Amino acid sequence: MTKVSAFAAMERGGKLEPYEYELPPLGKEDVDIEVHYCGLCHSDMSMLNNDWRMTSFPFVPGHEVVGIVRAKGDDVRSLEVGDKVGVGWHCGSCMQCHQCLGGDQHLCGDSQYTIVGHHGGFGESIRAHWSWAIPLPDGIDMSKAGPLFCGGITVFNPIATAGVHPTHRVGVIGIGGLGHLALKFLNKWGCEVVAFSSNPKKEQQILDMGAHRVIHSKDPKALKAIRGQLDFIINTTNVALDWNAFMKTLAPKGTLHHVGMVVEPFGISALDLVGGEKSVSGSPVGSRVLVSKMLEFCVRHDIYPTVEEFPLEQCNEAFEHLEQGKARYRIVMKVKD
Amino acid sequence: MTKVSAFAAMERGGKLEPYEYELPPLGKEDVDIEVHYCGLCHSDMSMLNNDWRMTSFPFVPGHEVVGIVRAKGDDVRSLEVGDKVGVGWHCGSCMQCHQCLGGDQHLCGDSQYTIVGHHGGFGESIRAHWSWAIPLPDGIDMSKAGPLFCGGITVFNPIATAGVHPTHRVGVIGIGGLGHLALKFLNKWGCEVVAFSSNPKKEQQILDMGAHRVIHSKDPKALKAIRGQLDFIINTTNVALDWNAFMKTLAPKGTLHHVGMVVEPFGISALDLVGGEKSVSGSPVGSRVLVSKMLEFCVRHDIYPTVEEFPLEQCNEAFEHLEQGKARYRIVMKVKD
Repeated sequence: MTKVSAFAAMERGGKLEPYEYELPPLGKEDVDIEVHYCGLCHSDMSMLNNDWRMTSFPFVPGHEVVGIVRAKGDDVRSLEVGDKVGVGWHCGSCMQCHQCLGGDQHLCGDSQYTIVGHHGGFGESIRAHWSWAIPLPDGIDMSKAGPLFCGGITVFNPIATAGVHPTHRVGVIGIGGLGHLALKFLNKWGCEVVAFSSNPKKEQQILDMGAHRVIHSKDPKALKAIRGQLDFIINTTNVALDWNAFMKTLAPKGTLHHVGMVVEPFGISALDLVGGEKSVSGSPVGSRVLVSKMLEFCVRHDIYPTVEEFPLEQCNEAFEHLEQGKARYRIVMKVKD
Repeated sequence: MTKVSAFAAMERGGKLEPYEYELPPLGKEDVDIEVHYCGLCHSDMSMLNNDWRMTSFPFVPGHEVVGIVRAKGDDVRSLEVGDKVGVGWHCGSCMQCHQCLGGDQHLCGDSQYTIVGHHGGFGESIRAHWSWAIPLPDGIDMSKAGPLFCGGITVFNPIATAGVHPTHRVGVIGIGGLGHLALKFLNKWGCEVVAFSSNPKKEQQILDMGAHRVIHSKDPKALKAIRGQLDFIINTTNVALDWNAFMKTLAPKGTLHHVGMVVEPFGISALDLVGGEKSVSGSPVGSRVLVSKMLEFCVRHDIYPTVEEFPLEQCNEAFEHLEQGKARYRIVMKVKD
């Protein structure tokens, strides 16, 4: 049995406190990873508050992990002890269904999630199936790479797989943990990048991160002024905006793509879609191979999240900072150098 | 001046009656077409009733025209007098905007529509810009080809351009004028074809037209039984169905595509899209070149609408037959042999 020191909430919405748990013997397809850094994602807060009715307590958050393989099961052939890896929302997939066989392990119906029924990266170690312990490319900065494994791949996935071309004019709604990475990716993807934000104070930072223009996301006049101009929009927010107005900003054949979990119905009808041959779509994180391709793209273009680092011991302060909407733009916990 | 004998409604919802109008001199990019056959589409009824607030009276319906070029303007180089052609919803596009230049003339913002501000095919002649007078391929049956130019291309467009593969399992909702053509196309496209109909009496006909299975579109149990199984769905109806239930019938990465004008909001949210990487999309008819490709596909596979023929003089009976939901499956007016 291996003991793991971590930080856990004992109850819904509770403060995190030091917590120790024991891991069962290592499965033959699993790896144990010594955590060095771990990002803090909005989903950690949703899970802490049991918003999705699938949290078990004690709850150890953290699903944007980078670290070093310290043990591996007998059947793990593609990783060695000492390898630098990252783990995101997924820590396992069945590897035998059509989705897994087809390369879409992130859409496997029997996936395991890093912080659902498992303890996450706010501790000295996590365990994952080898398939989702993803090797870091040489030269990547471990202290900033964590957020790429959830926030990063979530916005990289539609850019890479939904037909975004370098000649496109692309909008990003909501410039937070996910949105700021979308700006950086899209800028290097070659696109004209239009940021939608409701916070005018962020404007200069948004331009510095790669946007060519900033538009107030709740200003009907501003939305009207760019009618018919955008080829693709990525929505990273989970708030109810005027989606009909955003549909009108799309050019013919344009797509409004949601990665934010807007629970309220969009209020759109065939009238918003048919005439201009438009689409509304959505996606979760991204496939196993696409994460690797994204990491290579990041190294090639020197793309990292803009991070604020907290030592793991200050994890409650980090949660507060996030909850108050102060994160600029992604929080990373330093667990071990 | 050329005189044209036709049938027109003098007021909203009125009966059609013999009507004669004069055409101005032929424009140098236009052609006059002697009408031989003309399909009757639901849009003709919507226009007759001024549902879309864009009808002018006297109103001559008909936008699924096949006939023979009998005069052409000086600048028309791609057609000759005597050519067999068809005309659908569009009778002109600006030919100079990005959509036109890009091959998407059907998305041109300055398009002209055959029965909007123009007199349609329920008469001895119509006029169109050369670009939308589309040559019929050799060997096509003129008496049945009309409905391909609106109903046909409307369902062929998503099949041909939205990534439908022969290995896909595809659903068609609503087996009427559009839906029955979708079944025939999809069968020859190589797909597994699942028809959704609310009329059990049509079942054998639906199977005969190329569906491999028929499911009652308003039976929640039947929809539940095929959860996660469809790669693509084409909705041809304009009624409010349980769209959340249909979204659940989609496999991961699946798309629900609307060609029917459902005016009520769909009631879907990010919850329906994100987890399974799904889309909702829509489209109008199809591009100029795609109509030609569709016609070739039809000749190659002997695909025609299932038609009921009425002489033009019985156009009021034809409208009644359509209104009563009795059309099996598309009405065609015979204007001239």
